[in-house]
Amino acid sequence: MKIFVVNAGSSTLKYQVIDMTDESLVCKGLCDRIGAADGSVGNITHKTPDGRVYTAEAPMPTHAEAFESVVYALTKSDAKVMDSFSEISAIGHRVVQGGSIFADSCIITDEVIDKIEELSEFAPLHNPANVLGIRACVKTFGKDIPQVAVFDTSFHQTIPAKAYMYALPYEYYEKYGIRKFGFHGTSHKYVSDRVADFMGKDKKDLKIVTCHLGSGCSISAVKNGECIDTTMGFTPVDGFMMGTRCGTMDPSVLTYIAKKENLTPDQINDICNKKSGVLGISCLTNDNRDLVDAAQSGDQKAALALDMQSYQIVKFIGSYIAAMNGVDAIVFAGGIGENNPELRKDICDSFGYLGIKIDDEANHIRGKEVKISTNDSGVGVFVIPTNEELAIARDTLAITNK
Amino acid sequence: MKIFVVNAGSSTLKYQVIDMTDESLVCKGLCDRIGAADGSVGNITHKTPDGRVYTAEAPMPTHAEAFESVVYALTKSDAKVMDSFSEISAIGHRVVQGGSIFADSCIITDEVIDKIEELSEFAPLHNPANVLGIRACVKTFGKDIPQVAVFDTSFHQTIPAKAYMYALPYEYYEKYGIRKFGFHGTSHKYVSDRVADFMGKDKKDLKIVTCHLGSGCSISAVKNGECIDTTMGFTPVDGFMMGTRCGTMDPSVLTYIAKKENLTPDQINDICNKKSGVLGISCLTNDNRDLVDAAQSGDQKAALALDMQSYQIVKFIGSYIAAMNGVDAIVFAGGIGENNPELRKDICDSFGYLGIKIDDEANHIRGKEVKISTNDSGVGVFVIPTNEELAIARDTLAITNK
Repeated sequence: MKIFVVNAGSSTLKYQVIDMTDESLVCKGLCDRIGAADGSVGNITHKTPDGRVYTAEAPMPTHAEAFESVVYALTKSDAKVMDSFSEISAIGHRVVQGGSIFADSCIITDEVIDKIEELSEFAPLHNPANVLGIRACVKTFGKDIPQVAVFDTSFHQTIPAKAYMYALPYEYYEKYGIRKFGFHGTSHKYVSDRVADFMGKDKKDLKIVTCHLGSGCSISAVKNGECIDTTMGFTPVDGFMMGTRCGTMDPSVLTYIAKKENLTPDQINDICNKKSGVLGISCLTNDNRDLVDAAQSGDQKAALALDMQSYQIVKFIGSYIAAMNGVDAIVFAGGIGENNPELRKDICDSFGYLGIKIDDEANHIRGKEVKISTNDSGVGVFVIPTNEELAIARDTLAITNK
Repeated sequence: MKIFVVNAGSSTLKYQVIDMTDESLVCKGLCDRIGAADGSVGNITHKTPDGRVYTAEAPMPTHAEAFESVVYALTKSDAKVMDSFSEISAIGHRVVQGGSIFADSCIITDEVIDKIEELSEFAPLHNPANVLGIRACVKTFGKDIPQVAVFDTSFHQTIPAKAYMYALPYEYYEKYGIRKFGFHGTSHKYVSDRVADFMGKDKKDLKIVTCHLGSGCSISAVKNGECIDTTMGFTPVDGFMMGTRCGTMDPSVLTYIAKKENLTPDQINDICNKKSGVLGISCLTNDNRDLVDAAQSGDQKAALALDMQSYQIVKFIGSYIAAMNGVDAIVFAGGIGENNPELRKDICDSFGYLGIKIDDEANHIRGKEVKISTNDSGVGVFVIPTNEELAIARDTLAITNK
């Protein structure tokens, strides 16, 4: 039972093969420079857990040729992991935006592809690329192998109206469907499920705050196994400040800047998505590790950017604890969440009023599932490395086995 | 020691006279239709605590003539309260935006008036009107009577950079001074001071969340007597949803609507300020009482608007409790905060995890200083009717007595 997991970007194709008999990684890889405008060749890097690496250049005018390179890597290269692609039972695709249509993962049909394409309006950077990947995958492997779409938004479809509505004229919800969708849902679901197992408890009895902190960041409130709120909104720019995104904003700030600088909505959107966040404040970098180094070397804007981000995270965690009327577990995941013990400690220090105590020794373990709170802490605090690919593979298996 | 308190709008002039020997109200009144475009006369309504009322129409082409009508009402009308305006020791003016310049109330000089006028850029609806009132007041009463400016923003000047900076490119802070200013500061200071007195404690030992809920709404975190965060920001549209304002927003929602509807920044700003909030969601009213009635009669959008507002308040209170690492008192003030026991109860029910318990009997008292939590509640919850005019009079007295 091997599942092929696909995450297609506009010029990239990330993939993993996972053996579902023991949920072990079979291989993973990346194709990039797909469809390069200058007609140059693409590139594939393919790795196996036993340390074999295959890299090659090949023409990749579309994702279809990239998939052919992947098949070669899987079945014929020095880093081959199977004799034939027919050993793959099913393919799972990451899709960013499922809108209000897809509350669950589903088998991909022509109608499903059309709907994902229609939702491109809400995720112009992601859904068209996801559709490219899906169409190329269907073309390459035919319709005999089941393919499943797993949406970043599905886990958030349980969020109630009081949390997903924006307090704008109601007509914009009716006309355009503007609402909070939330993203990183696959990750929030994975780590909230995992932490319940880790605690040896039923998720239906738990109130969990999950913090997915990477270059994109979001926090969710997961109550009794269901997501009731999340920080990302209509698009992934909402919430708190990230690597290059500003998070939620005073509307008048944006209109003021638009007028002063004579900017179009697209230009404002570009600034909010690509030039803001810790990059915008530090005037230096969007990389958390570089920022920590700069702050330690005395760079005041770098220190301010880190302070702001940590403070905003504290406030969202606090707000979700109130939204759930309490909390049983706080989980850190994602590149920063899993690898920055100082940030975790700094955040948790604000929750002394809930009796949270951090075990400094446990907190310094990086990238492993670990409880970082003391046994007498008022609330359990955990690091749970996220695994979106495994979550996609699980959903793919579950749906194709139905 | 009588203080004349002035709150000038573009076509209105609200005033009170307060006797500072016992802080009692001497009279209050309102001039409106000042400078009516059609040249029609203005109107004055003047009331005394013993029930006398004087109303009249009079030409009010500028605020100067309005002040002359006020002097007549104070000294010559059937509702007169003094023989001569010279009984007034000092005049205190409410000014909305003091920017980063005015961290405290101050004596009004020509230079101060110029600076308030310069800050109009940040408060185009308010500061120009405040300046009109001040100039007319100086013209009418001469420079012998001391006049003091009290700013809505001053109390928030203690907010640290990590809370007042927006995570946009740093250059916008440098070029335009874009930051969180906060508003309702006079109210947040007044009620946080009052609740400390009411609790018989030193404000320097307290963590207080103050909720000013009226047609405009804001919440502040007041730690050891200093404001460390507040929901309103660069302008009063920021924070959570109000009567007609949307509060903080996913930037991409605004750019999406601007593109779809081909709207200018001014039009977007107008929508966010005047057509959003509970009015925008309910499609009915911005009046809290009417909304409660509609919801009770089964209007689903009215119910949604109330649910959303209450939920957003819960989240901000929760976030500020985390920001202060705990809370000793939660205070409700403002028209809605003082008069809507159901909303207070609904909000406080989310804080069972802090042991908050509401005394339902005490909670049903309206518009009076009262502790609404039980004696065994984990946190004290209070209603403190705000009195911005008294706060302005106190500041005016303190500064002119220096």
